[in-house]
Amino acid sequence: MGRRHETISFLSDYGAVDEFAGVVRSVIRCIAPHVTVIDVSHEVPAHDVRAGSLTLVRAVQYLAPGVVLAVVDPGVGTGRRAVAVEAGEDGEAVFVGPDNGLLAGAVSMVGGAGRAVELTNDAYQLPAPGPTFAGRDIFGPAAAHLCNGVELTDLGPPVDPLSLRPGLIPLSRQEGQKLETEVLWVDRFGNIQLNVGPDDLESFDDRVTLRWSGNVRSALRVDAYQDLGPGQLGLLVDSYGLMAVVLEQAPAADELGVKAGDALTLEPPSG
Amino acid sequence: MGRRHETISFLSDYGAVDEFAGVVRSVIRCIAPHVTVIDVSHEVPAHDVRAGSLTLVRAVQYLAPGVVLAVVDPGVGTGRRAVAVEAGEDGEAVFVGPDNGLLAGAVSMVGGAGRAVELTNDAYQLPAPGPTFAGRDIFGPAAAHLCNGVELTDLGPPVDPLSLRPGLIPLSRQEGQKLETEVLWVDRFGNIQLNVGPDDLESFDDRVTLRWSGNVRSALRVDAYQDLGPGQLGLLVDSYGLMAVVLEQAPAADELGVKAGDALTLEPPSG
Amino acid sequence: MGRRHETISFLSDYGAVDEFAGVVRSVIRCIAPHVTVIDVSHEVPAHDVRAGSLTLVRAVQYLAPGVVLAVVDPGVGTGRRAVAVEAGEDGEAVFVGPDNGLLAGAVSMVGGAGRAVELTNDAYQLPAPGPTFAGRDIFGPAAAHLCNGVELTDLGPPVDPLSLRPGLIPLSRQEGQKLETEVLWVDRFGNIQLNVGPDDLESFDDRVTLRWSGNVRSALRVDAYQDLGPGQLGLLVDSYGLMAVVLEQAPAADELGVKAGDALTLEPPSG
Repeated sequence: MGRRHETISFLSDYGAVDEFAGVVRSVIRCIAPHVTVIDVSHEVPAHDVRAGSLTLVRAVQYLAPGVVLAVVDPGVGTGRRAVAVEAGEDGEAVFVGPDNGLLAGAVSMVGGAGRAVELTNDAYQLPAPGPTFAGRDIFGPAAAHLCNGVELTDLGPPVDPLSLRPGLIPLSRQEGQKLETEVLWVDRFGNIQLNVGPDDLESFDDRVTLRWSGNVRSALRVDAYQDLGPGQLGLLVDSYGLMAVVLEQAPAADELGVKAGDALTLEPPSG
Repeated sequence: MGRRHETISFLSDYGAVDEFAGVVRSVIRCIAPHVTVIDVSHEVPAHDVRAGSLTLVRAVQYLAPGVVLAVVDPGVGTGRRAVAVEAGEDGEAVFVGPDNGLLAGAVSMVGGAGRAVELTNDAYQLPAPGPTFAGRDIFGPAAAHLCNGVELTDLGPPVDPLSLRPGLIPLSRQEGQKLETEVLWVDRFGNIQLNVGPDDLESFDDRVTLRWSGNVRSALRVDAYQDLGPGQLGLLVDSYGLMAVVLEQAPAADELGVKAGDALTLEPPSG
Repeated sequence: MGRRHETISFLSDYGAVDEFAGVVRSVIRCIAPHVTVIDVSHEVPAHDVRAGSLTLVRAVQYLAPGVVLAVVDPGVGTGRRAVAVEAGEDGEAVFVGPDNGLLAGAVSMVGGAGRAVELTNDAYQLPAPGPTFAGRDIFGPAAAHLCNGVELTDLGPPVDPLSLRPGLIPLSRQEGQKLETEVLWVDRFGNIQLNVGPDDLESFDDRVTLRWSGNVRSALRVDAYQDLGPGQLGLLVDSYGLMAVVLEQAPAADELGVKAGDALTLEPPSG
């Protein structure tokens, strides 16, 4: 027997309208009634592996010990592998999902991949009338059986961790005095998270010029929202330790007209 | 005492903005703290009994044993009955909701109605200042008390199962070589589920012509998404065992401009 | 040791797309694994303290005993206090959230504030890389530690309950025969809740004239939806004991074009 788990943290792009997430929760409840499912989010944009991956990266260090079940799976039924991956010291966390880069960033965050298997043992799957609902038939049952103490290696043959698909991590680039960044995330409140941390801005002063899509604005580096005047753009360390472009009590992303994936250049004020 | 239950599967059209679903969960927690509530969906379109009924039908065989609480209730306060209906072998599942056809399809799926009662015993209800929130005052408490082992027959007088309002099941029609179908459901990913199964298509070859609203397109019958080229319409058995019109990694419903309830004709390719 | 709690009722404006609510649930799970979190709503409009406060007021009397965690916090990082407030007999409920008026109405509903503290003891907080996610780092941990039996007074220094920020309760006004009201809430079904109860309408007959934004319509006072004809505006006591303007099976708010916060005058029919 493997170790038992009490918690499944569950992320998907299933949305709230269809019953997908509810049915996966039900399947888990049937197989492992002792488990509590914590919904991380089910509103990852449909098929958006990048957004799902970044959501997991932001959340993972706060998740309860146990199994992380993540399903954003545009390639369902097209040959991508279904996997379970241990990570962290002693393999204390197990990630279950498609091998399409969705899990990679979060797995790295908690120490990197240990043992991994491909989920091919149909003794731990539900029989499916059709090929399209892997969360219900493969991933959810695997997560639940792992919680019951089923050995990882009983779920299918080993997979070389080095063969797991890596995540796409957008890197920033220093070009002379300019820092070329990318918008990682626009949150509900319109804060604009960039792919740079405070260390990347060491050479900058309090005033930073932002350039994007032909626009230019000045932002003030601050420690807290309250240091900003009305309508003044700020650049602060957000609650994940990354730099974010913000307004006080207003959505900066609306003001700038940017969205996740957009490029944005930071540079010192001219002249 | 009746049998105790550990799980309530909960579906409604309450949405996520208002506190309706949360308050029903709270009421259940107060009455039967040992129960786990599994949310199936609360985003059934407001007052859409057909959509709610089909959602339950798709989900029901995967739900955990216990009570199914379903509230899509356009007729609240207008005289429709509130009911609890046992179904399945030994009445192992109990459905609680309005008698407006919402429950009928799911009840049939698990073996048909056994004993049924009308929920009129106000000893198992909350006192309501007004008439409009039956989930909180009648249905939720009934579900919770059933989980506590309250006898079905204590909730109100028996109802003849044959008098329960049937669901509306849209039937397909064979007309010569044509098969007249209806769109049951467009899911989050734009897959178009039809009210026909693979048996209904026995006389068809690999190529099928689709006609709807004056449009015509050809679809290829396939076993999996990966058998489709980019932009090629497919017809496959979906994860519920019904035929669905799909595109690989794209929303077929957007491409065709169809929605739930629309008519769609399948016919052999001409010439 | 303080008393232990089994339930946290959780309301926020975090939405379902971002992982905010999920991460707070995870943090609670890590600190107090025995606790069940009941989500009241996470779709309070972003930064809308008034809407969040009214949602809590509507829900509070139905919540399970324990901790109420509420986060609608436009002033995060701008100096508003983070507080925990006991309320009700023997302080049987504890409210945790920002001191910005969000909690005040609900605290009053259950008997008024007893002991209160400011959440400044970082032994019961998570270390935060940045200042912006108080739900994860301050409020959620405080709620969880309270459930574990941590004494209220261990979370920080006492706060004078009289210094807590009051809620904004929009009062109605009688002017001659007219009653000047405000729309408190438009629910998912388009029902329009006003800030008046049946007692305020004692001087009115069955017919009431509604005036708003230059429009005028007649409404019929009824006990139930079924007393209304098609398209007929009704005025009934809603499930919270307040007067609501309704249509049978149709959204009255769409018909009238009103939203929360709008003014609406009730007066006797002229002539």
